Amino acid sequence: MRIAINTGGGDAPGLNAVIRAVTLSALRLGWEVVGIRRGYEGLLSDMPDGLVKLTRDSVRGITHLGGTILGTTNRGNPLKWSEKRPDGTTVEIDRSDELIAAFDRHGIDVLVAVGGDGSLTIANGLAEKGLKVIGVPKTIDNDLASTAVTFGFHTAVQTATDAIGRLHSTAEAHRRTMVVELMGRHAGWIALFAGLGGTADVILIPEVPYDIEKVCEAVDARYDGDRGFCIVVVAEGAQPIGGEATYRNGAGAGAGLMARLGGIADVLAEQISERTGRETRSLVLGHLQRGGEPTAYDKTLALRFGAAAVQLIEEGHFGCMVSLDPPEIRAVPLAEAVAHIKTVPADSDVMLTARRLGVAFGD
Amino acid sequence: MRIAINTGGGDAPGLNAVIRAVTLSALRLGWEVVGIRRGYEGLLSDMPDGLVKLTRDSVRGITHLGGTILGTTNRGNPLKWSEKRPDGTTVEIDRSDELIAAFDRHGIDVLVAVGGDGSLTIANGLAEKGLKVIGVPKTIDNDLASTAVTFGFHTAVQTATDAIGRLHSTAEAHRRTMVVELMGRHAGWIALFAGLGGTADVILIPEVPYDIEKVCEAVDARYDGDRGFCIVVVAEGAQPIGGEATYRNGAGAGAGLMARLGGIADVLAEQISERTGRETRSLVLGHLQRGGEPTAYDKTLALRFGAAAVQLIEEGHFGCMVSLDPPEIRAVPLAEAVAHIKTVPADSDVMLTARRLGVAFGD
Amino acid sequence: MRIAINTGGGDAPGLNAVIRAVTLSALRLGWEVVGIRRGYEGLLSDMPDGLVKLTRDSVRGITHLGGTILGTTNRGNPLKWSEKRPDGTTVEIDRSDELIAAFDRHGIDVLVAVGGDGSLTIANGLAEKGLKVIGVPKTIDNDLASTAVTFGFHTAVQTATDAIGRLHSTAEAHRRTMVVELMGRHAGWIALFAGLGGTADVILIPEVPYDIEKVCEAVDARYDGDRGFCIVVVAEGAQPIGGEATYRNGAGAGAGLMARLGGIADVLAEQISERTGRETRSLVLGHLQRGGEPTAYDKTLALRFGAAAVQLIEEGHFGCMVSLDPPEIRAVPLAEAVAHIKTVPADSDVMLTARRLGVAFGD
Amino acid sequence: MRIAINTGGGDAPGLNAVIRAVTLSALRLGWEVVGIRRGYEGLLSDMPDGLVKLTRDSVRGITHLGGTILGTTNRGNPLKWSEKRPDGTTVEIDRSDELIAAFDRHGIDVLVAVGGDGSLTIANGLAEKGLKVIGVPKTIDNDLASTAVTFGFHTAVQTATDAIGRLHSTAEAHRRTMVVELMGRHAGWIALFAGLGGTADVILIPEVPYDIEKVCEAVDARYDGDRGFCIVVVAEGAQPIGGEATYRNGAGAGAGLMARLGGIADVLAEQISERTGRETRSLVLGHLQRGGEPTAYDKTLALRFGAAAVQLIEEGHFGCMVSLDPPEIRAVPLAEAVAHIKTVPADSDVMLTARRLGVAFGD
Repeated sequence: MRIAINTGGGDAPGLNAVIRAVTLSALRLGWEVVGIRRGYEGLLSDMPDGLVKLTRDSVRGITHLGGTILGTTNRGNPLKWSEKRPDGTTVEIDRSDELIAAFDRHGIDVLVAVGGDGSLTIANGLAEKGLKVIGVPKTIDNDLASTAVTFGFHTAVQTATDAIGRLHSTAEAHRRTMVVELMGRHAGWIALFAGLGGTADVILIPEVPYDIEKVCEAVDARYDGDRGFCIVVVAEGAQPIGGEATYRNGAGAGAGLMARLGGIADVLAEQISERTGRETRSLVLGHLQRGGEPTAYDKTLALRFGAAAVQLIEEGHFGCMVSLDPPEIRAVPLAEAVAHIKTVPADSDVMLTARRLGVAFGD
Repeated sequence: MRIAINTGGGDAPGLNAVIRAVTLSALRLGWEVVGIRRGYEGLLSDMPDGLVKLTRDSVRGITHLGGTILGTTNRGNPLKWSEKRPDGTTVEIDRSDELIAAFDRHGIDVLVAVGGDGSLTIANGLAEKGLKVIGVPKTIDNDLASTAVTFGFHTAVQTATDAIGRLHSTAEAHRRTMVVELMGRHAGWIALFAGLGGTADVILIPEVPYDIEKVCEAVDARYDGDRGFCIVVVAEGAQPIGGEATYRNGAGAGAGLMARLGGIADVLAEQISERTGRETRSLVLGHLQRGGEPTAYDKTLALRFGAAAVQLIEEGHFGCMVSLDPPEIRAVPLAEAVAHIKTVPADSDVMLTARRLGVAFGD
Repeated sequence: MRIAINTGGGDAPGLNAVIRAVTLSALRLGWEVVGIRRGYEGLLSDMPDGLVKLTRDSVRGITHLGGTILGTTNRGNPLKWSEKRPDGTTVEIDRSDELIAAFDRHGIDVLVAVGGDGSLTIANGLAEKGLKVIGVPKTIDNDLASTAVTFGFHTAVQTATDAIGRLHSTAEAHRRTMVVELMGRHAGWIALFAGLGGTADVILIPEVPYDIEKVCEAVDARYDGDRGFCIVVVAEGAQPIGGEATYRNGAGAGAGLMARLGGIADVLAEQISERTGRETRSLVLGHLQRGGEPTAYDKTLALRFGAAAVQLIEEGHFGCMVSLDPPEIRAVPLAEAVAHIKTVPADSDVMLTARRLGVAFGD
Repeated sequence: MRIAINTGGGDAPGLNAVIRAVTLSALRLGWEVVGIRRGYEGLLSDMPDGLVKLTRDSVRGITHLGGTILGTTNRGNPLKWSEKRPDGTTVEIDRSDELIAAFDRHGIDVLVAVGGDGSLTIANGLAEKGLKVIGVPKTIDNDLASTAVTFGFHTAVQTATDAIGRLHSTAEAHRRTMVVELMGRHAGWIALFAGLGGTADVILIPEVPYDIEKVCEAVDARYDGDRGFCIVVVAEGAQPIGGEATYRNGAGAGAGLMARLGGIADVLAEQISERTGRETRSLVLGHLQRGGEPTAYDKTLALRFGAAAVQLIEEGHFGCMVSLDPPEIRAVPLAEAVAHIKTVPADSDVMLTARRLGVAFGD
């Protein structure tokens, strides 16, 4: 048996733990393991380093490392491959047959695809074409519907909570309002959990459109009494009632340009400063949320997912994704796993907890 | 409505977050909140500082603090109160009626009891006597059966995983075997999770009696090849096949004396050193596992539990414990919650993951 | 004896440790201690909470807290007080006599002024007018000339080094260039130390004007061979050869507006992206560098400074600043302490170390 | 030019940063670098893996790792080599000529010896025999006299301070006295700095023999008033007035046996518990102080030492040790560097600070 591992999309703390668990579990069964470097492009173009053999040595000491030793990429969907034509136009072609042929040529029996919504949709497409595929869920944002949670999320929340904690002292010392922008374009889980644990006063998430007047009222209320400062946590996809989200990095634009156009935190800081007259500062946590050593929770979860993926292969249970259904791991069909994303329900207990604690959502 | 909060038994990171969430949630409903200082003793003896009023100010900035602002104690079970008789003997008397009268005298309508197996058994006893009680589960060891997990556990695992990580570098540099003793007298959850995330080579837990020969074989195996060192993680309640656990602190004995008698880590280190000839060192993590700032995961979980406790009071749902049934919080009867403890099942996926990764359990 | 403590300017981790050490040391001598809240404004306007008595209780458990329990402000220089005239114009007036009268009225014998260049210049002005003053140096940027180092700097460097470490994994996984903007308008110490410890590839500081071509060459060089990613650390005051610094927050402008205009990190990320074609992202660490728990190094240094300040008062040695002259603390005249700022010398061993390790400075 | 690096004695956070800095600095000059594996034994016995070539690849990403990639050992002094005779007795022989011949045979021009008192004494012995040697100071304990400080110390202090912080919450919750044993057989620097930064109530160090009665008085005093708990920090070499130190691990004894005999923390906890009647617990931080990622301070210091060592080689300045003379690095003769150890002076400002803050030393 020869299995290949692919890590796709944005990196998340715990990817290396998955790679280690799949590799060690498979080697114990006498199987071979290879890693696909930097997405499928290398495999499609038969680049010499597109595949790398994974041994006990190659996965030693990687559990605590962020990133992925295989590299990753947000580009290169084999089902919808962007190709430039001689006339300068771009067409999307389906290269999945070609990719499956490449797997075949390299003697790969099973693909373990570790990824989020995008990568798992690709994995599902390949599964539907007959490739034996096991999916492993990966999302910082916690927006995958078919698993209670996946690795990376709690590490991002920890990083964000620590950052909010640091801002408390400087906000308090200067009686400032601090606006912190966290990840979450479509789902506000990171902002909600980190805002709650970091005792933010205002939390704005995509699921609850906000009224800037109510946000400013909540800010002002924090200056009454002895507290005298305010922490506003905002998910990057938060949006005003009747308005649209203000993304920092739009598709196709250069990073520097977009940053200068500003994101939601900058817009909010300016609005709050103007309307309340309070000294207001913004901070964008950005890529700090993706990097670094996974928390202990995420290390064990990632290792469990990796080992469970090998168990599914042993059982011949393909076309599935491993999923956390506490306290156990189970398998869900890939098609079901990518059917829709998980956003914060208005009546989830975390939302209700925040409201009971007096957090304002601007609604 | 006037509610009282009690924190009992060993301290756990997250207790203060529970206190804050109960207090803020109750104050928003216009209720009064008091804290019971250092267990029930003060209340029974009507000590002047036995009760303290909890306000927004008293719970400000405590979410990130370890310990409990109310103090706690392992002594003083009102159902089985140890009392010295004039003749020097000790008898156990039931002072629960007296305690319920004290609650009455202080105008307390509901008791929120935050504790582990022992404290919740007391809470259940009081509930059976007619007191309106809500339980909040607290256990570092993760051995409460009626909740998926509770606050404190993942913080302890994080602390233990970090410690194991620190020992890796010194173990590797000196080609040593390090034996690390973690908490867990009856349940090996901390050792299992921390050992897995910290990539220990051997994990010994109460649920899997070990054969010292097999442990030593596993140690020796780590010196074959290039690795050349070994990490053994042992729960304090681990025991040899056919033998008994070697506790560090026995009941009634002074701390210093017991420490000198040594615990399981010292015994194991000596046995491994003698049988394998490997340089072996031991470390007892002890109280470091109880203290310090809760992880982000535990902060939010503790806050959710506290808010849910107030919701149960609102709903008039007494005699229950709040419980995590992911992704939501629900209520379970107190009697059910304390009926039995939760140990590591041999076929749990975490155990199977460890075995797939090559961890030895000495069995 | 009655002494007053003032914390001025931006907050820095360790301020509370200074307050605790001054307070406990003074109380042991039987002195009284008061804290000046939020700068001199409250004292000048005789606001009721402008002064707060400091006791053992008020300084309990504050050593590990960031910020300052007294509050601070960047506004309100009593020597150059901005006052609005009826015609709308603003004049600067000298209110130092008024302030000294206020000290007198409140029976304050000595002022302990904890601050950076600005606050210590004020302190020196007050000393020249006859007030008994002891200065305690505080600067995140490490730009005070008369002390080897002061508290706050190494905490900021630690935070920045950790952040750079987090970005490594995501940079490597995606083969990106990450541009990280750190504090330092006139002195590049934070960028130099954090860049060195965080193993950055390029470090740009105010002291070494850069050539963008050379920066891009250095970036490209990191993609040759196996590394395939690049970390650029830039102090906010770094400037191109012959050009000017691009500050994020200019004087007088609102925070949001300025953030949108962008700072040096955004400019650099755009330039590098355009010239090298490499995927480039920027991150501005901002206020995270000011906040949070001080490192152990900064805690002890701040405590030593506080205790030394009280010793100088005991010795009647006024008009001085405590200063670290390793391994001891000594006193330097305030006038000397604020005479000039300390920038990175081109031949300092830290610079030479960075160059020996292959770090590019763009020169 | 071909240089060899040796890391000797106990491991310390920062060793790998020295190795990286020496290697990168030397490679830039076109030199070759080899690492001596696990002390001199491999070299003396011509073991095949006794020397390993160091390249850019071998030192990539090691700055943040604890331990040493070369391995280390506390055994094997080539000047006093223990050799078993056929009759069972052991003799010490001088194998330094043999070792110098081995250096010659492997074409090694210069030895960079990274170590503490013991390793540098060996290095000095080799230098006196004519080998070109550069020393780099390494000591967790901060007891090397000829350098202001060296890497490893501040990381150990940080770890110890964090641990004391964790114990505060559990001590306070249970109104306990916690006795924490830290490293330091002859010098109390770690206990003094960590005790000060961790706000311990009692600090016992080898330099100040203690009276157990005075220690207990200080403990009791902490229970007067509202605090109600006590933190005692003790260096492993602390000793009662007129008594001797109680080491945990005596020479020649097995680790387990020694641990059971107990160290100073256990003895103290028992004495305090008996005399004061306070609930007392002990914790031995042990190897946790050696391991883990270096602090940012130690990373840069270690890198600076490594780069400075190469500069000394370039300048032909042999027989020296690099040393921190803030703010610069300078060279001191090896003979001077190992002449005596640095203990805590009674009148050092850190001691005086602790006394001003009310810390008891039991004297």
